[in-house]
Amino acid sequence: MIKEKVAVIGSGNWGTVVAKILGTNVVQQSGFEHEIKMWVFEEMIGERKLTDLINEKHENVKYLPGVSIPENVVAVPDVVEAAKGATILVIVIPHQFVNGVCDKLKGNVHPKVKAISLVKGFYTTESGIRPISHLIKEALKISVCTLSGANLANEIAQEKFSETTIGYKNRHEGKLFKRLFETKYFKVNIVDDVLGVELCGALKNVIAIGAGMIDGLKLGENTKAAIIRIGLLEMKKYIKMFYKGIKDETFFESCGIADVITTCYGGRNRKAAEAFIVTGKSFEQLEKELLNGQKLQGTLTAKEIYLVLHRKGLEKEFPLFTTVYRIVFEGLDPHKIVEDIV
Amino acid sequence: MIKEKVAVIGSGNWGTVVAKILGTNVVQQSGFEHEIKMWVFEEMIGERKLTDLINEKHENVKYLPGVSIPENVVAVPDVVEAAKGATILVIVIPHQFVNGVCDKLKGNVHPKVKAISLVKGFYTTESGIRPISHLIKEALKISVCTLSGANLANEIAQEKFSETTIGYKNRHEGKLFKRLFETKYFKVNIVDDVLGVELCGALKNVIAIGAGMIDGLKLGENTKAAIIRIGLLEMKKYIKMFYKGIKDETFFESCGIADVITTCYGGRNRKAAEAFIVTGKSFEQLEKELLNGQKLQGTLTAKEIYLVLHRKGLEKEFPLFTTVYRIVFEGLDPHKIVEDIV
Repeated sequence: MIKEKVAVIGSGNWGTVVAKILGTNVVQQSGFEHEIKMWVFEEMIGERKLTDLINEKHENVKYLPGVSIPENVVAVPDVVEAAKGATILVIVIPHQFVNGVCDKLKGNVHPKVKAISLVKGFYTTESGIRPISHLIKEALKISVCTLSGANLANEIAQEKFSETTIGYKNRHEGKLFKRLFETKYFKVNIVDDVLGVELCGALKNVIAIGAGMIDGLKLGENTKAAIIRIGLLEMKKYIKMFYKGIKDETFFESCGIADVITTCYGGRNRKAAEAFIVTGKSFEQLEKELLNGQKLQGTLTAKEIYLVLHRKGLEKEFPLFTTVYRIVFEGLDPHKIVEDIV
Repeated sequence: MIKEKVAVIGSGNWGTVVAKILGTNVVQQSGFEHEIKMWVFEEMIGERKLTDLINEKHENVKYLPGVSIPENVVAVPDVVEAAKGATILVIVIPHQFVNGVCDKLKGNVHPKVKAISLVKGFYTTESGIRPISHLIKEALKISVCTLSGANLANEIAQEKFSETTIGYKNRHEGKLFKRLFETKYFKVNIVDDVLGVELCGALKNVIAIGAGMIDGLKLGENTKAAIIRIGLLEMKKYIKMFYKGIKDETFFESCGIADVITTCYGGRNRKAAEAFIVTGKSFEQLEKELLNGQKLQGTLTAKEIYLVLHRKGLEKEFPLFTTVYRIVFEGLDPHKIVEDIV
């Protein structure tokens, strides 16, 4: 039997945590080659290359300082080299990089390769928005599963217990990925719903922007729970309206309700939206100050969703998504988040 | 057309907030008599009777200090006198008082009276646990609706926005109660599911005990969201297993998911369970210190539920409920809350 060979495409905060999990698991589980190549977007840390630092210290000093990565994880600066010979690609990069990476990988992957996408967000085209898993699937002509859940990366790096959800189309692949990812502190449920899992992971950030505004306005726990509830229903309605084959049960998985809760209490979209209300600063400014220049997913997704709703005249059917967009991009009074949704 | 006459049976923290809402609404809505009698369990505050103080200051100085109650709400120390002539009884008392109150009201209520129960918890008999709404219905031979939601009382007293859910059997009554309770800051959804609404309100407190333990153990947002998710599923499973006619949609209402969230982040069961872990004190001690001697609903409900599960040999199907019980009552190591549910 041929062993599965894993490559991790991406090495940010979440990607590095995932490499840590997989590096341990491929050794403990049977059927996997022990070496994992991890693609690192090369950058200089002082006078040293990040890949060299990772391979020397077995630690991602930039994106996950203080946490050891198993020595069988090898940082590679060339994405084609990282993916070479891999039968499993774990794709965990910011969504704006997906196109470029797929272009490079096209024609350079193993004939039996399959992928699992941990990418959050959509791919926007002139005709609308498309899931990232579709993009990868079409670009590389391979099968793509998805993984999403209540997974704040730093807590998992500390091996605190969490759950996650893997969406599969082919059950055999779902089970393979469960074996690859599951640990004592990272519990995997698999569901036959690739898109449901992926889309919850993208849309929840819009709800978190709304929840953060409630925190900034100091409206309390009842109001915040109401916003989360309404947001969850709009998320479900949106996904079921625009995509086929979505399962109701998916929204009860970690990728659904649990991730919405985690993101609305502990995530960076919540934090930035609270600061937006309290300080009056722009989201651009707050991205610089709070996120080290990283782009916020929630405001971008709110805009992408709103453009679809607006084009179809569906604003009134999605009052929370619409109001969040208008507060962020059109200067609407934030108090409208309560007034306009009831 | 005969006007509806409202009596509020109960005057604790939540009962007083409800009396404030209803006192305003009966004047603004058509079809209601303006005077509302509120039954107050008489007690002495210094040398004054609590009823006299409420009627003089239009404020419940003991259970909701600092908040004005409309002058058309009249405190009455005798429950039969309070209910006399009322066509609507709003029952909002601790569940251990329900039997005694019903005994007194029996034969002393208006022939057209109907009730809405805001009581949390179960009524335990030797043969098992029964919903409070059943008890009221059988004792007084009247129709009973239920109200429950993400409703921390002090936030509603400050007129911060929240939602709630009313469960009805007769849609006409559901709509009547919606008119009676709804305000700009207190949004009512009605559902054809008396028991679903009521039982969510009771069971959520067990989940909150679990969530508070996670806070005490400092396991973070991912773990807490996992516990909330698993708790919500066990709550749904328990209610659907033991009661008929429960609607799936009820769990997406304010009484379901939103109340679970509010209770797990802002409620007193969460707070006491966190302190139980951090200080090592008993729940009895913490009730005295944190709750002014008031009994915690969550630990009591955990025990009632566990006895049912144990009798039927269902412990393994409800690992969170079972583990919460064992930590509280059998001295199980609190870390088992994570280990035993996965």
